[in-house]
Amino acid sequence: MRLVASGKPAIVYAPLRHTLSSGGKRLRALLVLLGCNAVGGSDASALPAAVALECLHNFTLIHDDVMDRSPVRRGRPTVHAKWGDAVAVLAGDHLMSLGYQSLLATARLPARARAIGRRDRLDRIDRLDRLDQILEVYTRAYRDVCEGQGFDLEFERRREVSMREYTKMIGLKTACVIAAASEIGALAGGGRPAEVRSLRLYGERIGLAFQIRDDELDVTGDPKEFGKKIGGDIARAKKTYLLVKAMETARGTDAALLRSVATARGARPVAKVRSVYERTGAIAAARREIVKLTRAAKYALGSLPESAGKSILIDIAERLAGRTA
Amino acid sequence: MRLVASGKPAIVYAPLRHTLSSGGKRLRALLVLLGCNAVGGSDASALPAAVALECLHNFTLIHDDVMDRSPVRRGRPTVHAKWGDAVAVLAGDHLMSLGYQSLLATARLPARARAIGRRDRLDRIDRLDRLDQILEVYTRAYRDVCEGQGFDLEFERRREVSMREYTKMIGLKTACVIAAASEIGALAGGGRPAEVRSLRLYGERIGLAFQIRDDELDVTGDPKEFGKKIGGDIARAKKTYLLVKAMETARGTDAALLRSVATARGARPVAKVRSVYERTGAIAAARREIVKLTRAAKYALGSLPESAGKSILIDIAERLAGRTA
Repeated sequence: MRLVASGKPAIVYAPLRHTLSSGGKRLRALLVLLGCNAVGGSDASALPAAVALECLHNFTLIHDDVMDRSPVRRGRPTVHAKWGDAVAVLAGDHLMSLGYQSLLATARLPARARAIGRRDRLDRIDRLDRLDQILEVYTRAYRDVCEGQGFDLEFERRREVSMREYTKMIGLKTACVIAAASEIGALAGGGRPAEVRSLRLYGERIGLAFQIRDDELDVTGDPKEFGKKIGGDIARAKKTYLLVKAMETARGTDAALLRSVATARGARPVAKVRSVYERTGAIAAARREIVKLTRAAKYALGSLPESAGKSILIDIAERLAGRTA
Repeated sequence: MRLVASGKPAIVYAPLRHTLSSGGKRLRALLVLLGCNAVGGSDASALPAAVALECLHNFTLIHDDVMDRSPVRRGRPTVHAKWGDAVAVLAGDHLMSLGYQSLLATARLPARARAIGRRDRLDRIDRLDRLDQILEVYTRAYRDVCEGQGFDLEFERRREVSMREYTKMIGLKTACVIAAASEIGALAGGGRPAEVRSLRLYGERIGLAFQIRDDELDVTGDPKEFGKKIGGDIARAKKTYLLVKAMETARGTDAALLRSVATARGARPVAKVRSVYERTGAIAAARREIVKLTRAAKYALGSLPESAGKSILIDIAERLAGRTA
């Protein structure tokens, strides 16, 4: 919050305070810190990157809510609902610039770099190398999340999407930022290449599980806990795990209802859609998939030595499978 | 264009091709290359940064056109006019991520960094140091341009804005990206600190002149050459140089007309507003200011040795004062 505590113009900073003070799990910041801890790094070395990941994530929320016309987020009005689209576009842009600003602080150089000795210079090259790698991962996540959102929008307009296409889309839209968080944590903590790869893999897997659970909560969630409108994906013809899976097997009137969900035409009450998802086994399949991904995420951490960070990462993977918010 | 030649999703790449193929002066890319040349650097070392600056600039155009509801840019429909707001928001975001991606290529490291000798490592630290500085300047420009656009939007809703506030706003909104272009060129070319400062100063000054001329063209421009709608600033109650200056001295019916421009209320035909700007001397003042800034920009280059880059930079400063598009 200190990042946006004051500052002008108010038109930019007020919506950012609104967004960053609205709670949320701060999962991505946490993953940066835990990834760093799991490779033996100090929290301090990962803090600027943790802030940067929250900036990237909240930037996507603000802009996605504009694109998806979502009225509520974390139980509060979204930025565009409260201040209008122009302010929401600008606030998101600005937040992303603050993300890079924070990231660059990861390896702030001594003021008089050229005056320091040769030994220090060799340490500095490692720090700069690391920063360069962190910036690469962060920028790839930034680009991927835009492409993923693009596929998500394209899919709204399509009648059918394969499970393969769905998985690629959520890999870009959701898993890439979560994977970047744990990977960047490992990089900031000075992790070896194999450790960095393990933490990326962990993040990718919980990221996919996270999105499938999110898709499920759109029909099974409690609106108070979830913080978002229930049935929002149905209203927008979003190609969710449940819809894609259920369309593979549904027949007769069930198939007809799913087609109207896929094309956003006709009556499609949430309770009725939910019962088709149950009847076709799509909800059960989603839960099995989440369990599988969770197990794979934990497996990815297998080669890391025991640490507080590692055991919390395992705990997070297990909790994600059962999350309700 | 190769950056966006193909690529999926089409929903993101098609608008980017539309934007980047629509001409424009490519002033910022040019300034990067010339800044680099003026300090004795090779074009190749500045090319990725030149692309990055065009990405940043075109990102601001796409999003500003959404916020300002502008229908036409460079004589073609704007992205939001052609594809809708959601696509324009996303395309702008994506373009900005490509900007960082291109910038990071400025100092792409050899694949097997650790295998190279000590002498090479010391060269690499200089390259990484440079990249770090370039990223700082680029990120500051990204942040500043958002804040500048925020002030621009805030000022639309205000009845009065001082010349001091106006100058601060255009310094952030326009001059910062132009100054970043020439400064980053100098950094990429390996310029000494004094040279880098000279090129930044040059960019700041032509940037301010550029925006004041842009404000003037909104009432005096030829729509075919200008590529934008004439009177767009009047329609949106934009606090331009002309309006701020004219409001300082106008009395009676002239002052009343300016108040209706400032609040976007009542009839305010462009021809009538223009004649008030002429009568109050605001247009003449704008032209004097542009000449003064142009001279100061050229002065900033005084200490640089003669070069092809330097003489083209001087030429650009002179042409900007008389530009019609």
